[in-house]
Amino acid sequence: MKLVSYDENGTPRFGALCGDRVIDLAGASELYAADDETIEIIPSRIETFFEEPDVFSESARAVIARFEADHIANDAISKLRSDVKLLPPIGRPPKIICVARNYAEHAKEAGLEISPIPIIFARFANTFVADGGPVIVPSVSTHLDWEGELAIIIGKNTNGRRLKKEEAMDYVFGYSIFNDVTVRDYQFRVTQYTAGKNFRASGPFGPVIVTADEIADPHKLDIRTTLNGEVMQFANTETMIYDIPTILEHISDFIDLEAGDVIPTGTPAGVGFKRKPPIFLKHGDRITVEIPGIGTLSNPVIDEGTA
Amino acid sequence: MKLVSYDENGTPRFGALCGDRVIDLAGASELYAADDETIEIIPSRIETFFEEPDVFSESARAVIARFEADHIANDAISKLRSDVKLLPPIGRPPKIICVARNYAEHAKEAGLEISPIPIIFARFANTFVADGGPVIVPSVSTHLDWEGELAIIIGKNTNGRRLKKEEAMDYVFGYSIFNDVTVRDYQFRVTQYTAGKNFRASGPFGPVIVTADEIADPHKLDIRTTLNGEVMQFANTETMIYDIPTILEHISDFIDLEAGDVIPTGTPAGVGFKRKPPIFLKHGDRITVEIPGIGTLSNPVIDEGTA
Repeated sequence: MKLVSYDENGTPRFGALCGDRVIDLAGASELYAADDETIEIIPSRIETFFEEPDVFSESARAVIARFEADHIANDAISKLRSDVKLLPPIGRPPKIICVARNYAEHAKEAGLEISPIPIIFARFANTFVADGGPVIVPSVSTHLDWEGELAIIIGKNTNGRRLKKEEAMDYVFGYSIFNDVTVRDYQFRVTQYTAGKNFRASGPFGPVIVTADEIADPHKLDIRTTLNGEVMQFANTETMIYDIPTILEHISDFIDLEAGDVIPTGTPAGVGFKRKPPIFLKHGDRITVEIPGIGTLSNPVIDEGTA
Repeated sequence: MKLVSYDENGTPRFGALCGDRVIDLAGASELYAADDETIEIIPSRIETFFEEPDVFSESARAVIARFEADHIANDAISKLRSDVKLLPPIGRPPKIICVARNYAEHAKEAGLEISPIPIIFARFANTFVADGGPVIVPSVSTHLDWEGELAIIIGKNTNGRRLKKEEAMDYVFGYSIFNDVTVRDYQFRVTQYTAGKNFRASGPFGPVIVTADEIADPHKLDIRTTLNGEVMQFANTETMIYDIPTILEHISDFIDLEAGDVIPTGTPAGVGFKRKPPIFLKHGDRITVEIPGIGTLSNPVIDEGTA
């Protein structure tokens, strides 16, 4: 499944992308549940979906199968994707836990050492930007840089358990794309990355969450970041220093993972600030991150105050 | 007002501490609204309260005034504090934004430089511990250390504004106490503090939020941390390097503040890891942080797996 959140008169609503249509999963499950008792009513917000992701996923699969079997799209429970404004797939995840320096070539270009232990920093959800929404060049810095990344979506609470690598993949619900846009001067002017990694409108996320069953091998995915159509980053997730089980083992060593957590896994080489000359995002640019099998996350860049 | 969250059959419920009783604000507002149209129904969760803190605060004040005027406590809408299990006052704040090295003597004892710019790191809400709940010594480290702190609670969204110092205090809803318990070896083994600052059951928070009108001067508060009754930290908030307006100006430079955000403002000198010999929290200890005018946050310490 490809799950999305979309705007419904100012409120986020939870849906599934199905061909060129977005199914309203809450509405469709109510309709179908009337004559199919195997279908559970699905919540209208993805945050609530993640309170019981297994039950609701099963119901969502049944809803999608029935929607597809109908052949004619039902306008009462679906809309054309082109008529829908997508939102970040999870607006308020329990946590956004980011991995730094996870590709050797990127650590090298940034002049930073490879760490034997994963380096973790945090993002706040109110920095998120939907697919298509503007990334903002703040008035206080011109050093705005891209970082295309594969994001893991967690599907199961660890409840005090430290995960072993061999069980870690059971905790993965699916995958998405994250552009960990960074204000470089703020990132490095103090020891902690928090400010540089948490500027307003600096976190493109989406467009969809693809469930894990649709990704044959998350360690064999191409990631490509293009700036105005020109390739800036191109790598395969097989070159990650810490693979997904290692990341989840490390995080669950100190904190509990929760269903709905978002874990951007780090960016490959090709960011802007160490190019010669450096390239930074500026008003009028378009920055795009693609992961075949997941989708394309594309955002215009605008100056603060021009929205 | 002194606001709390408390456990009601496994669900957090929002209340006000009034003498020796906790008023159920949702229940009391429903009761009183029947014959008083100035009283708005107050939500049963504090997270919803923070969607409209001004409206609901006014209603909460009216509810408390009427409860007090009744002289006889109404058991249908209140309980003895001693019969209530308090929870962290806000279980899921939009953000937990922590300030590092905000007292010169603490920076000195830790061997760290004073930074001309505030250093910010993040906490995740699922590390919170209620007043009275156990802080856990993890099985993977013995370097567990206390950090008593004044916490700011935000009451107003900045909505894209960078705050000036002179308006910043208008965005403060109230104050609480935070014990930023830290696993020192994890804090310093990589550049980012995230892991060391986010261990399971490492964030005592509470017991109450005191609204700003009850604190004459937040820059003249004593903070005292005691370990098994012995004073470990004792300072006044007048010695903070970055005062509250400076902290809020800095944070709102990069990200929007949101009503309900929690901002622990840094710890004074007297932590354990640089003492000679070092002192770390161990099973059987009791760690207590007091700020007169706000309250006392006291927690037992237990080994992981012994709860």
